[in-house]
Amino acid sequence: MNQKFLLKIAEKLGTPLYVYSEEQIRKNYREFLSAFKSRYRNTKIFYALKANSSLAICHILRQEGSCADVVSIGELKVAQRIGIKPKDIIFTNNSKTDQDLDDAIEAGIIVNIDSIDELHRLHKIAKNKRKAVNVSFRVNPAIDPKTHPKISTGLKESKFGIHLENNIALDAYITAQTLDWIEIKGIHTHIGSQITDMNAFKDMTEKIMQFTLELKEKIGLELKFIDLGGGLGIQYTDDATPTPDDYAGTIIPVVNEYNKKLNYEPELWFEPGRYILGNVGVLLCKVTGVKETPYKKFVNVDAGFNVLMRPSMYDSYHRIQVLNRIDENATETYDIVGNICESGDILARERKLPRVKGGDIIAVYDTGAYGFSMSSQYNQRPRPAEILTWGGTVEVIREKETFDDLLRNQKAPNDLID
Amino acid sequence: MNQKFLLKIAEKLGTPLYVYSEEQIRKNYREFLSAFKSRYRNTKIFYALKANSSLAICHILRQEGSCADVVSIGELKVAQRIGIKPKDIIFTNNSKTDQDLDDAIEAGIIVNIDSIDELHRLHKIAKNKRKAVNVSFRVNPAIDPKTHPKISTGLKESKFGIHLENNIALDAYITAQTLDWIEIKGIHTHIGSQITDMNAFKDMTEKIMQFTLELKEKIGLELKFIDLGGGLGIQYTDDATPTPDDYAGTIIPVVNEYNKKLNYEPELWFEPGRYILGNVGVLLCKVTGVKETPYKKFVNVDAGFNVLMRPSMYDSYHRIQVLNRIDENATETYDIVGNICESGDILARERKLPRVKGGDIIAVYDTGAYGFSMSSQYNQRPRPAEILTWGGTVEVIREKETFDDLLRNQKAPNDLID
Repeated sequence: MNQKFLLKIAEKLGTPLYVYSEEQIRKNYREFLSAFKSRYRNTKIFYALKANSSLAICHILRQEGSCADVVSIGELKVAQRIGIKPKDIIFTNNSKTDQDLDDAIEAGIIVNIDSIDELHRLHKIAKNKRKAVNVSFRVNPAIDPKTHPKISTGLKESKFGIHLENNIALDAYITAQTLDWIEIKGIHTHIGSQITDMNAFKDMTEKIMQFTLELKEKIGLELKFIDLGGGLGIQYTDDATPTPDDYAGTIIPVVNEYNKKLNYEPELWFEPGRYILGNVGVLLCKVTGVKETPYKKFVNVDAGFNVLMRPSMYDSYHRIQVLNRIDENATETYDIVGNICESGDILARERKLPRVKGGDIIAVYDTGAYGFSMSSQYNQRPRPAEILTWGGTVEVIREKETFDDLLRNQKAPNDLID
Repeated sequence: MNQKFLLKIAEKLGTPLYVYSEEQIRKNYREFLSAFKSRYRNTKIFYALKANSSLAICHILRQEGSCADVVSIGELKVAQRIGIKPKDIIFTNNSKTDQDLDDAIEAGIIVNIDSIDELHRLHKIAKNKRKAVNVSFRVNPAIDPKTHPKISTGLKESKFGIHLENNIALDAYITAQTLDWIEIKGIHTHIGSQITDMNAFKDMTEKIMQFTLELKEKIGLELKFIDLGGGLGIQYTDDATPTPDDYAGTIIPVVNEYNKKLNYEPELWFEPGRYILGNVGVLLCKVTGVKETPYKKFVNVDAGFNVLMRPSMYDSYHRIQVLNRIDENATETYDIVGNICESGDILARERKLPRVKGGDIIAVYDTGAYGFSMSSQYNQRPRPAEILTWGGTVEVIREKETFDDLLRNQKAPNDLID
């Protein structure tokens, strides 16, 4: 999406606004899939809906052939709505309610079990319903992926998964084998998000393959699938990051090596979210004004951390551009700040930009993943629209919220003045 | 609200659930108001809607006589809806759009100006509309309130306000005096949130009073009001924190001292939000299961950081209790973790609790402020209901969202399977 096109969209549809490129979604999906499929035929992609669960986005990925990684019944309903088959949906969560488990069994999807306690609850419900359930176990391989602590999910102290050590995971599989209504189908791990250290992925793969071999040798168990989760980082800064090709090139030799000993070839599943959606999206916002103080120069924009949580929550960096000044020299250093009444509401710190004026349009790049999906109505602000582009066409896939939307579901006191 | 009552509510209405006590709202409001009013007759309270802008909550505060501190047009609409008069509404924000300013002038409320740029934009719009606008300036007194950096709003590097130093604020008032459609009514500052250091408030008050004196002596300006913002901390831990009495006792002598030199008595305005709503609310959640790993014991609950953002966002501490085990000894140490698929989704770390089991009900206290108002639908999760109690009565003031609510405003692709 070039700058002139984005400017035109901002002008026509107003700001703040999320704009996604359909071509880029398809391109990323195909790049990821082919990097693995060209090396390992039995590869499947389970798009991680939490990155962006808007119907139109998920629908594009279903068209591409993606399966679904869901973390809640809400996401399951999206996956069902766009027509993904139950056998192609895996449900991962550390804290599933009995109702969640019941809904998952009813839907016939794969339940990715996070604890022994959950295994027993799941079996009890399946038995009551007289309906068998396909499962995998999420294992914790105790690996530091060297990313932000808030998104490092495979550390040994993490809340996620069943530990490999002390035979805890092995015992879980042994127990599961004794339960009539539980069908073991696979294994799952996910060590974190925005990972750029290929060694972490290599270590993870070795540990999982070694354990898969143990399952075969010790308890005669062959798995239909090995799900290695998501986590491949994307390029947020100007420094290049590893590609799906690098990732696949790192781990597929490990898998192949172990497969010789396994004497069977499990399916390999991946759950990219950020990689598919991240660089697909741009947040467009408008400059309301510029303020120079004795200490800093601030560019105020019309979007805050209710619209894009990542910079405030994870100190994350997003490239930005002043779309109507791309040909001008960057002579000023600004903090670009949002309209939420908190000091931490800073979209970008100390950026070199051309001299900015009120009315300028700023693009915040790489906001397709964990952008809209983390948005809120904090400060009583309606959430922005989402727009899908394809070539020169523009489609509203989610309308901007209205002020009335913010009052929805509220029971107003009787004596309110109308 | 006693534990048995809360347990009954959780059982009847399900979890997660926000429960507020109407008596406590009224008690807090009156305590805050009387601490100041007993020392300074000309005191007014402007409830900061951003703490919790639910209609029923704001309506209670209107009944108590509160004015409104709003930070967006969405909050303005709430204040109007509950019948607060325009002259009793102040609009503060660092990044107001032209449309925001137009709406504010139209509504006849006080615009709290954040920059010289905004002053000129506001005047231009007022002139075009031929409607004068009442204003104050938010000044930055360059004070460190010794609270969390994300909520320290009066630091000299903050995005908020016009600096006192170098006569910048003075020049703003001088400029405003020359503008026909601008009516100067007051001054405003707000140095942060959850402040427990009374010296910070004292320094702030001295700086603002000194500047108010300067306005009189240098440019002959008398202000209708001095708005000292919000920020008084509440007791989140077991350690007592200063009360409104301490706060008023600290700053009113300063104000009185300056008033002698001023030779007039401005109104004093305060904008408490957290103080009024914080300890009013309890988040009730249910234990889905307990997981013991070689490193930690986790209590999984059915609410995550989409429901209560504060612990993940600000590392904030909230007291918790296992409501059905209040008589049992605390023998275990747990991390209480939510159902959002991120490692940072931890509601409470290393808490001593009785041995917890699935189905137990956990109360997360002091969540009335910045609880529901910061909630999101992340992980495609419907937001919880809000409940108001009064004595033994229970009223749903906001219904739980449905899965359909999550799909609202979306334009589904044509070939979706229905």
